[in-house]
Amino acid sequence: MSEMKPQLAEPQGAHLGEEIVGRINQLGAISETSEHLARIFLTPEHRAAADLILDWMQAAGMRAHLDAMGNVCGRYEGERPGLPCLMLGSHYDTVRDAGKWDGPLGLITAISCVGDLHKRGRRLPFAVEVTGFADEEGVRFASTLLGSRAVAGTFDESVLNARDSGGMSMRQALVQFGLDPDHIGAAARAPGELLAYLELHIEQGPVLENEHLPVGVVTAIAGATRLAACLSGMAGHAGTVPMPLRRDALTGAAECIVAIEELCRTDLGGLVGTVGYIHATPGATNVIPGQVSFTIDLRAPTDTHRRRAVADIVRRIESIAKHRKLALQVDVTHENRTVPCAPWLRSQVADAVAAEGYRVFELPSGAGHDGMAMIDIADVAMLFVRCRGGVSHHPDEHVDTADADAGARVLLRLIENFKPKEPPDNRRDPLALRCPRTEPESAARHRTAVEPSCR
Amino acid sequence: MSEMKPQLAEPQGAHLGEEIVGRINQLGAISETSEHLARIFLTPEHRAAADLILDWMQAAGMRAHLDAMGNVCGRYEGERPGLPCLMLGSHYDTVRDAGKWDGPLGLITAISCVGDLHKRGRRLPFAVEVTGFADEEGVRFASTLLGSRAVAGTFDESVLNARDSGGMSMRQALVQFGLDPDHIGAAARAPGELLAYLELHIEQGPVLENEHLPVGVVTAIAGATRLAACLSGMAGHAGTVPMPLRRDALTGAAECIVAIEELCRTDLGGLVGTVGYIHATPGATNVIPGQVSFTIDLRAPTDTHRRRAVADIVRRIESIAKHRKLALQVDVTHENRTVPCAPWLRSQVADAVAAEGYRVFELPSGAGHDGMAMIDIADVAMLFVRCRGGVSHHPDEHVDTADADAGARVLLRLIENFKPKEPPDNRRDPLALRCPRTEPESAARHRTAVEPSCR
Repeated sequence: MSEMKPQLAEPQGAHLGEEIVGRINQLGAISETSEHLARIFLTPEHRAAADLILDWMQAAGMRAHLDAMGNVCGRYEGERPGLPCLMLGSHYDTVRDAGKWDGPLGLITAISCVGDLHKRGRRLPFAVEVTGFADEEGVRFASTLLGSRAVAGTFDESVLNARDSGGMSMRQALVQFGLDPDHIGAAARAPGELLAYLELHIEQGPVLENEHLPVGVVTAIAGATRLAACLSGMAGHAGTVPMPLRRDALTGAAECIVAIEELCRTDLGGLVGTVGYIHATPGATNVIPGQVSFTIDLRAPTDTHRRRAVADIVRRIESIAKHRKLALQVDVTHENRTVPCAPWLRSQVADAVAAEGYRVFELPSGAGHDGMAMIDIADVAMLFVRCRGGVSHHPDEHVDTADADAGARVLLRLIENFKPKEPPDNRRDPLALRCPRTEPESAARHRTAVEPSCR
Repeated sequence: MSEMKPQLAEPQGAHLGEEIVGRINQLGAISETSEHLARIFLTPEHRAAADLILDWMQAAGMRAHLDAMGNVCGRYEGERPGLPCLMLGSHYDTVRDAGKWDGPLGLITAISCVGDLHKRGRRLPFAVEVTGFADEEGVRFASTLLGSRAVAGTFDESVLNARDSGGMSMRQALVQFGLDPDHIGAAARAPGELLAYLELHIEQGPVLENEHLPVGVVTAIAGATRLAACLSGMAGHAGTVPMPLRRDALTGAAECIVAIEELCRTDLGGLVGTVGYIHATPGATNVIPGQVSFTIDLRAPTDTHRRRAVADIVRRIESIAKHRKLALQVDVTHENRTVPCAPWLRSQVADAVAAEGYRVFELPSGAGHDGMAMIDIADVAMLFVRCRGGVSHHPDEHVDTADADAGARVLLRLIENFKPKEPPDNRRDPLALRCPRTEPESAARHRTAVEPSCR
């Protein structure tokens, strides 16, 4: 039996999926080793990838260059030169033993969409820029979002002195790549140049698959708090200490882990909590653990929600420790604000999804993305594409060609229908164009001023 | 204010405590290194310790020799030569970074008690033997109770081919020590030569301290079952997988650990359960653990009780795994039968405790001891001496001199008042003298026959 293909009117951008998947495979072959995919910031393979992306941008009718941080920047002019732009983008670095789709899908899809406009000679009342961010994963220098922070003007120059595992500083690595570390400031864009920042990315989770949908509209990039907890009791012989006389740090930790899960499970607002690491000391079969350390990762779609959850959980584990006569130490090791997607932009994403015939489904992003840095100079929105089994950061990461195609069609429609935010009275201040956002937390040292009228 | 010392009539053996503690310190100085105590089977320091113990035995009026396994054997004849003996003993090897008391206290106290009999020219209607077992801890060849198994005639000769971490076989090590590995069988004693085996040992737990008692009567050496459990779920991104879609192996393991503790806590029969080791994979802060392995150590005063608890716990964790859609693998990695202390002998221990003015308190031994091997040729009993904080296998292990003295007084009284078990009708079979005991499990390959009349 041969498969029946329905005869439908083909929308613009149809069949971009195949071009995209071809390029994903091409880029996915540029790696530190042929055994697994690793394309780490400022390595020779990273440079080879940048050159390939520059070629694709030029072929799509863009002016393209590498900026001072190694970001690949392409610009497709609008109806007249010099107009503010809609910026599309994602990153082209990878984790080690990575999948091919995390980052490249958004970047390649954006280039293909611009290529489609170019092929049709279509110019829009704004420019379209595509940025391939050089480092989002932060594998080499243990500091994430380096590319988008440089573009947002929030790059912390002290990180130039950070060293990789081989002892090379970021400053040296930039020079070796052919860049001038003293001119990183030149990568920063002025807020007035950007109308919005829009990113397509694989979901990296199982929600869309569970909803049988190829695409979803992101509500916010969830903020995260990471805690390190350590419980101390009394080690002892597994045979000689009766149950009532024990101060077992591991049974205490187990009660905490069950409580954290329960608290998140019964939360109706999208709170997720994970204990990913645990270590029991001394760790022998026949010794009661005297000390246990574990991590807690908490994320929620709003900062208020997450902060309340952190407080609830700390209170709960304090109470468990007290009841069990265990000493407790809890430290916040990492904190990221929530980055909400701008409602005016998000509704345009939803319109494009609906226009392509898909049910509009909204979900938060639990993973971090370049929008977390870009929010400092532009309103941000994101479109998620389904990935198989929710698997990411793994060679099994996979997107069906039909889903890549669906993502491209939605993105192309979104670009063509894009309407900049209606400016308020104070037109001259481009910051005033932006929606209210939450206060930056520790992760963002630099903050752009927000007009009182925006609050 | 000066302390008032009550003027009491001094019993026999008073002040043995000081001699014992002096010898504990002397033996505790014989170590692989001066930084910590380690006296490992068949090393030069092990040999030096054996020679010192031989000297002490001879000074106490005993004939003394090293047997084919390196056990130090002393014999103090009774009213006439060749009588069956009451055997006292404990081990003189240590773990690494050990305390001075675990093993040596029982051995040295026994020698001091015999020395006291000798000093007074006291002969008893039975011989008294003291055995310093060469290896109880099993540090070097990963097989415990080597010394007492040789004496009990249950030594597994295949262990001679076991190698230490440096690659030396036990056979070679015995030769280097000056022994003949082909004659280990000569160390075995005939059951008819022993009236009973009696061991004094530090408690290695906090129960006596909690009861404010220097000594306690052991009811049984608890059997143990060790399980290795492995739960497998699905690893995932800590931010992108909603709580209801997770198959988190660590929250599953935590629920199991809490359930094991609850089951043991609510048990009124002395069951103890410990999860000492846990490992979560991949073990990163921001990744949901896909696999968790952990160990379970279960001990109870009777085999029936322990086997029921093992079944209950396996059923419980199977149910948790099923409910959470986790795969579960559970393996028994180790099993030891319970060794009950013989009631006729235990009541004599209790009488001696009471006669020394202490409340008779009975407790099981959660730790293993040489009695676990000696049960194969003699009825067994044990007397525990309080150790500070229940700490053992650690340099902080400590026994107050007053408690060492209390132990010695009880042991000496016990020896002097010892009455062999009344023989039943079939006098000629020494095995028939012994009380019923439980079936040996995997740890005991050799088993002595038990007369039907004893069941």
